[in-house]
Amino acid sequence: MLPRSIPRLSKVWIPSGGFAVPGIEDAHSKLVRAGFLRQSHAGIFHMLPLGKRVQDKVERLVAKHMEESLAASRVSLSSISSEALWERSGRLQNIAPELFRFPDRKGSAYLLSPTHEEEITNLVAQTVRSYKDLPLRLYQITRKFRDELRPRHGLLRGREFTMKDLYTFDTDLTSALDTYEKVRAAYSRIFNDMKLPVLAAKASSGDMGGDLSHEYHLPSPFGEDSVITCGSCDYTINEEIATTRVAHEICQADHVGVWRAITKDRSTLVNVWYPTRTIRTDTGQVREYTNSDINIYAIKPLVPDLDAAVSDATEFWAAATEGPDATAKRLVNLFDSRLPPSFSGSLKGSASLPMWPDTVKTGASTLHVQCHASSTNGEKPLNFLRIRKGDNCPQCSSGTLNVQKAMELGHTFHLGTRYSQPLGAKISLPPPSSSETKPSTGDSGTSKTVSMQMGCHGIGISRVIGAVAEHLADDKGLNWPVAIAPYTCIVVFAEDNYNDAVEVYKRILNGFGGQDERLDIILDDRQKSLPWKLKDADLIGAPVIVILGREWRIARRVEVQCRRLNINEVIDVNNLPSFIAELHLRL
Amino acid sequence: MLPRSIPRLSKVWIPSGGFAVPGIEDAHSKLVRAGFLRQSHAGIFHMLPLGKRVQDKVERLVAKHMEESLAASRVSLSSISSEALWERSGRLQNIAPELFRFPDRKGSAYLLSPTHEEEITNLVAQTVRSYKDLPLRLYQITRKFRDELRPRHGLLRGREFTMKDLYTFDTDLTSALDTYEKVRAAYSRIFNDMKLPVLAAKASSGDMGGDLSHEYHLPSPFGEDSVITCGSCDYTINEEIATTRVAHEICQADHVGVWRAITKDRSTLVNVWYPTRTIRTDTGQVREYTNSDINIYAIKPLVPDLDAAVSDATEFWAAATEGPDATAKRLVNLFDSRLPPSFSGSLKGSASLPMWPDTVKTGASTLHVQCHASSTNGEKPLNFLRIRKGDNCPQCSSGTLNVQKAMELGHTFHLGTRYSQPLGAKISLPPPSSSETKPSTGDSGTSKTVSMQMGCHGIGISRVIGAVAEHLADDKGLNWPVAIAPYTCIVVFAEDNYNDAVEVYKRILNGFGGQDERLDIILDDRQKSLPWKLKDADLIGAPVIVILGREWRIARRVEVQCRRLNINEVIDVNNLPSFIAELHLRL
Repeated sequence: MLPRSIPRLSKVWIPSGGFAVPGIEDAHSKLVRAGFLRQSHAGIFHMLPLGKRVQDKVERLVAKHMEESLAASRVSLSSISSEALWERSGRLQNIAPELFRFPDRKGSAYLLSPTHEEEITNLVAQTVRSYKDLPLRLYQITRKFRDELRPRHGLLRGREFTMKDLYTFDTDLTSALDTYEKVRAAYSRIFNDMKLPVLAAKASSGDMGGDLSHEYHLPSPFGEDSVITCGSCDYTINEEIATTRVAHEICQADHVGVWRAITKDRSTLVNVWYPTRTIRTDTGQVREYTNSDINIYAIKPLVPDLDAAVSDATEFWAAATEGPDATAKRLVNLFDSRLPPSFSGSLKGSASLPMWPDTVKTGASTLHVQCHASSTNGEKPLNFLRIRKGDNCPQCSSGTLNVQKAMELGHTFHLGTRYSQPLGAKISLPPPSSSETKPSTGDSGTSKTVSMQMGCHGIGISRVIGAVAEHLADDKGLNWPVAIAPYTCIVVFAEDNYNDAVEVYKRILNGFGGQDERLDIILDDRQKSLPWKLKDADLIGAPVIVILGREWRIARRVEVQCRRLNINEVIDVNNLPSFIAELHLRL
Repeated sequence: MLPRSIPRLSKVWIPSGGFAVPGIEDAHSKLVRAGFLRQSHAGIFHMLPLGKRVQDKVERLVAKHMEESLAASRVSLSSISSEALWERSGRLQNIAPELFRFPDRKGSAYLLSPTHEEEITNLVAQTVRSYKDLPLRLYQITRKFRDELRPRHGLLRGREFTMKDLYTFDTDLTSALDTYEKVRAAYSRIFNDMKLPVLAAKASSGDMGGDLSHEYHLPSPFGEDSVITCGSCDYTINEEIATTRVAHEICQADHVGVWRAITKDRSTLVNVWYPTRTIRTDTGQVREYTNSDINIYAIKPLVPDLDAAVSDATEFWAAATEGPDATAKRLVNLFDSRLPPSFSGSLKGSASLPMWPDTVKTGASTLHVQCHASSTNGEKPLNFLRIRKGDNCPQCSSGTLNVQKAMELGHTFHLGTRYSQPLGAKISLPPPSSSETKPSTGDSGTSKTVSMQMGCHGIGISRVIGAVAEHLADDKGLNWPVAIAPYTCIVVFAEDNYNDAVEVYKRILNGFGGQDERLDIILDDRQKSLPWKLKDADLIGAPVIVILGREWRIARRVEVQCRRLNINEVIDVNNLPSFIAELHLRL
């Protein structure tokens, strides 16, 4: 009879879920098959004991850094928020399609919070009044809700998910930027603890507001984002806002392509003229480009109403020019800076590259033509092509760029007064000393109060689980870093070695002094064969597996397997604790 | 400079919220004023750091017993469920008004789960097939949602709240009832650990289904339930289903009252005739009763459609008898068994107690009159009056009953196959041995599978916090049991005793061997006066307060205050650890 305190897999509910389809199984399917989670509804999941255990570890790790590195206080804000509050921030309509909204029995309009800027700002506005109460850092780890158009990849893009969100409140911009840097440093430590090669990339602030933000990306071929990094300097940036030093490529004659786009209101056709073949002046390298190389993010600033979802505009354009309700009014020509200067002038006469798509039924006379070319743009050369590996870094003189697909795990935003201003989160300032001039408040009409400087900083707890699974899984199964593994070590044994396994378990534990918090060891005492258990331990993905097998019967020695480090060694039990301790440091 | 690891109140966000209104402040207002929580919307709350800390402790305590006492595995089910699933269990319409429901962007119908019988049964139905996988015990601690008609008393009746829900799955009734008793025992241990005098009362199963259930009640004058207990035996039961031994009271002549009720469909008037003054034959005690003593739960079994929300039916009855759409069709007379046997016969002629309310406009000829009297009911004497202190226990021969207002903290239900049957949670049975007859399955058509026997068992985590606050608060503030206090001990000192306080903190910690998990001590290093800190420590409600005050300056001795035990002693620092340890065991 084992004492109750020895952890045993037979006491954990781990429903296995069918067989792997060889070759095409993604990490999400492995999570399901290994019993970590199950889908309840599209993009919505139940966490089962193994998954809940991983989630708890990620949450504890993140919470530790929020408190130790940032002295943040933990709160737990309500899931339900009100439309009235989101109207006050002006954000309700912007993200309405992604909100789950509902009335209560009295008809009041509520929503499920996808994020909590409104609620926390409102709360702080009602409770904090003085500069003496700042800096204030509040975080929570709670379930969030977002009605994704296309939920996919399991935990990577779900409609119900767990997120850590930290909100920071400072008196002025200087201290807010100092807080921002401290948060960035804490994020580095969090991802280091999980031994994940996360890139902190400059990013667009999007719907969130504010003007300084970073995304934290785990490189992966399955990623939905592209991160650009320089091989020589620290330039790390989301493709959406990345630039390069261009103008060292020259378009070869007659190698010009056009990509046609349309605005959301269907009033404007956009012709993006670009080189289909270039030669680099410095290296002589020849490059070819097609429509798939068009960088939509370089066009958006010039045509803000661009419909990015339309990849071939000609059909939409045809519809927009037909009949009495024709909306087509305007043509915009955009010329990539690598095209010959004479190209725009020669355009009208070109038969192979018509200004209008063939299908256009209307005459050009009704249209206003507007051109953007490098020569007319004083700032920098227009570049409508996506960055490629080997492009020149815009930040340093010598570096070339890399492009990596990546999964976003976190995001930091400096918000400024984007929420504090509309929601009235203000503080009184210290009385100015007589030798100083009164500080500029930025709030007209109030002389001694200013809106707080805010930041918001998220880590997708559910995303981390899905992304780590994707990052480290191989054909045998999942593979967890020690910091967040459901168990860091599984002891596998045949049924008749029950008591021996307990002995080995105690040996390891005693060797660790009984309380190393990294060590989380469990015995697989389920009524299954040794090969079945080995296969399942691989699937579950414990970093270290200890086996009482043939060597045990012969010489009381155990086999230690560590798939990630490609280790498979026979170890004397006396050396086992130090051997496992060393592996735990590396994984 | 203090080392970072010393817990200090200056690092915790504790927004104070205004001043107490003397005499009328309830515990919820104290929770708000002391900075434990804030309301975000009606019946919806943000937990602030102190409140979150209490909640974490309650959750950990409950989780420990789920795992150690019941070997339950922890899951985390999705908050969003679908209407389609709730239709399958047949429960959607029953509790529709209490559900928050919403469509997603594609129009699918979802809801926020107030409880998870449907989801867990569906999950288990898809993953568990054999008796070998049972018994199975799964629990979670998650946020739940219920659109209460009248949210009130803060955390006691909120619309968004945290609940622990355990679901149990057994092969047959015997093992299910065994599981049920184990859960009851675990609940006792949980409430014992919090040192709460919780009553386990037999209860009605209500909407949940099943036929065996208990509620776990904390007695409180603010409670919404009434629990009946016997002074001599273990009879403990919710008033809703309680009975007494009656017939020892005799109605005094001419002391008859009538309470009029109406059915929800407005078709039936109910006259409940009862004694307004009685004499007990055994003691000679005289008792008086009014309409407020009517026990609605004794009437409902006889008139299932009774509208319990209507306290005076005459007005509704008048409306129901008027005009062409008159719905009034039927009259039911109910006679309490204590009335004289001749009373029902004499009724028609009575002028002072008319059969019809004065306002009735219709003649009796259109009505069908139905009578229930004790003589026509073979089972037990009809008793329509609420149980009073001193009534006879129906279970033992000698005991008398007590009536206590109480707050419900938990509920256990044996569900049987209420959910497993409609949702198809079935298991194969072990093959019958040749000497046995085949077990009866109860499922027609399948010879070797049966529906699982289920139980569901909740503890309202949010309710525990609100109820404990209410139970132990006094006029100075909150008052927490050691097991769930935000801090078990606050060290209070004047600003210039900063380093001394650290010394005292270390003394206590070392005295506890540095790792007693009950001890959770913090220094109040905020920039406030000693009297302010003392008042706030009382308001926050730490069980033990250690003060470096006048005695410290004179003789390096501390004052230890414990309001609940009425202790205020001056202690030498050498004796402090053992003194505090002893207090921690008692609180």
